Amino acid sequence: MEAEFLDWLRSELSSPAARGLRDDAAVLDTPARVVTTDLLLDGVHFRLEQCGPQRAGRKSLAASLSDLAAMGAAPRAAVVSLALPRHRAGAAAREILGGMLPLAQRQQLEIVGGDTNTWDGPLAINVAAWGDPVGEPLSRSGGQVGDRLLVTGRLGGSLLGRHLNFPPRVAEALWLMEHATPHAAMDLSDGLSADLPRLTEASGCGAVVRAELVPVSDDAVRIARRSGRPPLQHALHDGEDFELLLSMSPAAAERAVAEMPVALGTSVTVIGELVQSGVWLEQDGRRQPLISEGFIHREAAP
Amino acid sequence: MEAEFLDWLRSELSSPAARGLRDDAAVLDTPARVVTTDLLLDGVHFRLEQCGPQRAGRKSLAASLSDLAAMGAAPRAAVVSLALPRHRAGAAAREILGGMLPLAQRQQLEIVGGDTNTWDGPLAINVAAWGDPVGEPLSRSGGQVGDRLLVTGRLGGSLLGRHLNFPPRVAEALWLMEHATPHAAMDLSDGLSADLPRLTEASGCGAVVRAELVPVSDDAVRIARRSGRPPLQHALHDGEDFELLLSMSPAAAERAVAEMPVALGTSVTVIGELVQSGVWLEQDGRRQPLISEGFIHREAAP
Repeated sequence: MEAEFLDWLRSELSSPAARGLRDDAAVLDTPARVVTTDLLLDGVHFRLEQCGPQRAGRKSLAASLSDLAAMGAAPRAAVVSLALPRHRAGAAAREILGGMLPLAQRQQLEIVGGDTNTWDGPLAINVAAWGDPVGEPLSRSGGQVGDRLLVTGRLGGSLLGRHLNFPPRVAEALWLMEHATPHAAMDLSDGLSADLPRLTEASGCGAVVRAELVPVSDDAVRIARRSGRPPLQHALHDGEDFELLLSMSPAAAERAVAEMPVALGTSVTVIGELVQSGVWLEQDGRRQPLISEGFIHREAAP
Repeated sequence: MEAEFLDWLRSELSSPAARGLRDDAAVLDTPARVVTTDLLLDGVHFRLEQCGPQRAGRKSLAASLSDLAAMGAAPRAAVVSLALPRHRAGAAAREILGGMLPLAQRQQLEIVGGDTNTWDGPLAINVAAWGDPVGEPLSRSGGQVGDRLLVTGRLGGSLLGRHLNFPPRVAEALWLMEHATPHAAMDLSDGLSADLPRLTEASGCGAVVRAELVPVSDDAVRIARRSGRPPLQHALHDGEDFELLLSMSPAAAERAVAEMPVALGTSVTVIGELVQSGVWLEQDGRRQPLISEGFIHREAAP
């Protein structure tokens, strides 16, 4: 299986960098500075039976691209490891890569090598990707008291389908790096209420989120009809948004909100600010602790 | 689990490069040019119940180090992804990394980031590693007719235990890069008879292996007593040796054999030469095709 699959993959990948498909390792044209790895698992991050291998593959690559975006790094290349369930492994491998290739091409990332194995376990897909930062890489730790807190896109209800086909915010990140100099950034994978404390802890400060400013997605509204909870709760606590959470100076935030080109596909919204300590939700003039409901990939939707 | 595990890991890793343990990606001090990824699976590459998480971890890192050695690259950094069986996942994660850290330190490789998940599947460990080549990276395709064919160490019987605790031939590779200018190289993972045709195909030539020159390991002799087959058969066909297979000019081969420092821990042996076409075993004056028995990780030993 492996040789045949690699032949197919080589024919799909025009790049000379794809020599990693034949040698024991790949050789990069541009050395890697920012590196990330993500292991996505059937039953945890996707349900293969429901979403199929193509969408599982796409999501796996998109998750790594989202990590690079959070670091302010332009995607360069990736290596893909597959643990394939024994039955119809070859077909699945092609579909998985088939789900990755259009996204890779659009983001100017080359898949330069990989490792495929079959086994009796469920599908597992690891993508290790690297990129080049525009200037100094972003981190979670650069936030400063007084910074505005912003998110890209709209939050909540991702499990209705967006968690599989979300657009990684690479272009947005690179534009913001150039025009707004963010102090801190991360991507939202476990939900705003779970991820924000990671940013404030790393930055040694606190944060206030203003409820009326949080951009609630249409999906959050739809899922709220089923759950009976307010849409805002889904926007605050649902995981797998894969939007960017950023902090920057008030002036930069104003510029970012006003000037981010529509062509990038999404907007950026101020949702609060960094303060001395605590992580708070301010709603109707009252401040209460913003506490995560502990989304930890307990459930995967189709 | 994850936060606690990461705290522990941060305390183990002194390097500032370990910021990948907190941010969405890691930033390398020195950009690296050669990259490899390996996904090792319970029931395929190791049997967790028999070998335990520590040796599974060690083997996973060693496999990537062996790939870097095969490319003539000095190890720099790695990111580790874990899919952990749900019961005692935290303890397993520490033991897995505990199996990697001494080897990483010895090989001057930094573990700079990772991704951990729990699931209902078996243990899966992905290591993506980066290195810097000494000069131009080696490949499988550089072999030339007339080259001597060499291997490090001794072959066969790895499943008796060496497949878990083999020393990746990094120092040997770097010494050979400097003193013998190999034309082609790869590591032996599927057995000499399965891997050699990959090198000859990539180089567009053939090879003759001289039976009396093949360094047969003590393990091959021991396992032959059980199997009833000649030890040489194990040296030719057993997988998971993780020794280097190299081609170089006759003069360079002579130098390498004579001068490789004993301190490196192993020797290098001429086992044959590259020819126009075919992959042959020459034994008792007769030449016969060297055909792989098709070791494809069918069985994992403890």
